[in-house]
Amino acid sequence: MDEQQYMKQALGLARTAAGQTSPNPLVGSVIVKDGRIVGMGAHLKAGEAHAEVHALRMAGSAAQGADVYVTLEPCSHHGRTGPCADAIIRAGVRRVVIAVLDPNPLVSGNGVRKLESAGITVEIGVCEAEALELNRMFFTFIQKNRPFVTLKHAITLDGKIATHGGRSEKITGDAVRQDVHELRFLHDAILVGAQTVALDNPRLTNRFGDSKKQPIRVVLDHDLRIPQESHIIQVPDAPTWIITGSNPDIPNRAAQFPEHVRVLQVEGPRVEIVSALELLAQHQVLSVLVEGGQKINTAFLKSGQVDEIATYIAPIILGDAGTVSVFGNLQTSAAENGIRLETKSVDRIGHDLKITSTLKE
Amino acid sequence: MDEQQYMKQALGLARTAAGQTSPNPLVGSVIVKDGRIVGMGAHLKAGEAHAEVHALRMAGSAAQGADVYVTLEPCSHHGRTGPCADAIIRAGVRRVVIAVLDPNPLVSGNGVRKLESAGITVEIGVCEAEALELNRMFFTFIQKNRPFVTLKHAITLDGKIATHGGRSEKITGDAVRQDVHELRFLHDAILVGAQTVALDNPRLTNRFGDSKKQPIRVVLDHDLRIPQESHIIQVPDAPTWIITGSNPDIPNRAAQFPEHVRVLQVEGPRVEIVSALELLAQHQVLSVLVEGGQKINTAFLKSGQVDEIATYIAPIILGDAGTVSVFGNLQTSAAENGIRLETKSVDRIGHDLKITSTLKE
Repeated sequence: MDEQQYMKQALGLARTAAGQTSPNPLVGSVIVKDGRIVGMGAHLKAGEAHAEVHALRMAGSAAQGADVYVTLEPCSHHGRTGPCADAIIRAGVRRVVIAVLDPNPLVSGNGVRKLESAGITVEIGVCEAEALELNRMFFTFIQKNRPFVTLKHAITLDGKIATHGGRSEKITGDAVRQDVHELRFLHDAILVGAQTVALDNPRLTNRFGDSKKQPIRVVLDHDLRIPQESHIIQVPDAPTWIITGSNPDIPNRAAQFPEHVRVLQVEGPRVEIVSALELLAQHQVLSVLVEGGQKINTAFLKSGQVDEIATYIAPIILGDAGTVSVFGNLQTSAAENGIRLETKSVDRIGHDLKITSTLKE
Repeated sequence: MDEQQYMKQALGLARTAAGQTSPNPLVGSVIVKDGRIVGMGAHLKAGEAHAEVHALRMAGSAAQGADVYVTLEPCSHHGRTGPCADAIIRAGVRRVVIAVLDPNPLVSGNGVRKLESAGITVEIGVCEAEALELNRMFFTFIQKNRPFVTLKHAITLDGKIATHGGRSEKITGDAVRQDVHELRFLHDAILVGAQTVALDNPRLTNRFGDSKKQPIRVVLDHDLRIPQESHIIQVPDAPTWIITGSNPDIPNRAAQFPEHVRVLQVEGPRVEIVSALELLAQHQVLSVLVEGGQKINTAFLKSGQVDEIATYIAPIILGDAGTVSVFGNLQTSAAENGIRLETKSVDRIGHDLKITSTLKE
């Protein structure tokens, strides 16, 4: 096996914990000695041991003179656990191979310097693109100081959100529902507009396999108008955060809400996308899955605060009368000022299709 | 090799002539003796030898006691070439394996009966689904007495045809252009509405590789209103057929058109889709590629006369203001009365996507 293959193994280990490490990144590590893997580990949960520590423990004395592969620069600071760089140095490791440096400019490179000054050879950038992709939510959060935003919608082949009397209709199959639950599981929060709550009264819970993690249900609701009888207010199966404008009588009106419901106010009478995301970042929300209707979809795209789009396409044509397009007015009448995407993946999911896109810079 | 594998070889031979046999079907044949292929052939062009005849010629005396695999029932009638069933009988063949019977109810089964009454063992239905798919245009033509209709359009991810001041804009890449030329090559005719000619002035020619076949350019133009200076009228790089309504002064107005332009009138003041297709079938047009705008797309879907839809999706979002949806009013406000499709294939073509769908019965 070569460097790339060892690092891919470490990336695979990291990936197994997807959805359960926030606000920490996904990290995997493999320790190699004399062409044999002597230790491996992944970071599983914030507050618990880092990947390198797990791997060093497994390796025991075999770590002496070994090579450590790790998908993210080992930390050099005292957080909730001791600095990994110190643990690596103590174990007598010969060489450390790192996929990508820490994205936080305040500490980036510190782990490497610590290792090097202890005489350890350090190599950086093996499988860097995969490592960046793996932790795209974490990197976005650190670098842009806002959550990673995924827009999700289900449309017909001709770009319509199926609606009937204003309420959304289910057009995609059961396999897509499972996939959406996985998407929910992978995000810290699910975000909708007040209108979706009022019309569809969704549960917005994660029902992915036996996972018990429930993302926070976030509603943008300028003036706290969502019905008191809504599922997300009445049923405490996940936390509910309602982000409202600054209307001073809102706290009083919110007083009788059950304990799982928090009302968070932003400056100004209306909730702008940028301020809502700022607020969520302050509360350590690393990623948001937006599951809104046309209004929220359009507002997010216009705000420029979208990182990924998950488009489920049902094999149905609805035409242009009495139907609603997935996006509203984007001020883009000509193709050259349309919003350009990069297709990341295309998958057939049951009878439907899933296109995952990123936004071109 | 087993029966299925020999038949797949015959299907592969047939496929090599795709786009060049109309109004005849695609047919391939393989002759096997003692586990060895002793002859093979395909039908290449209407008026020339049938597949079985090519294969028997290649086999020569080895055809004696051999098995003939053929993708379509051998003909029993005297057409432009002699009946293949007779040639097979004369060659002393032991057994004939047929993928699918002749679709024409007037002659279907006649070839088989002739072979059987000559003491030849006949087996039917090996790789039948593939054989039906291979000749879907031919089968549709024979069974529905109208051309096979493919709707083709290029849309954004949100279902818009990019337009700027009414004229269509190119949104897909060069790889899609090549693919469209192949689609054109595979059809007998390309059909557009008068509005597309007036606004875009397209050439509507096949520029697929070194192919010289040019599909007929068909324009639906109720009252012969397309501009005299249009490329398709001025430049004789392919035949142009304009289908108009019955207005009696149309023949006079058409008199000064160049020789490559034919004006064909249907009953009634307007050209209904059904009558246009009937007319094309009378002229031995087996397949039509519809490359219209919203109006023609919508009219075809509403008419129910669509067999396949080729949807090219560009990774662009345009939104719902100043843009045009791919389909107009289909009277389908709720998902349950939407037009349901079956996804046949999904391909990434350059940066774009191609979804090929058939209509659910």
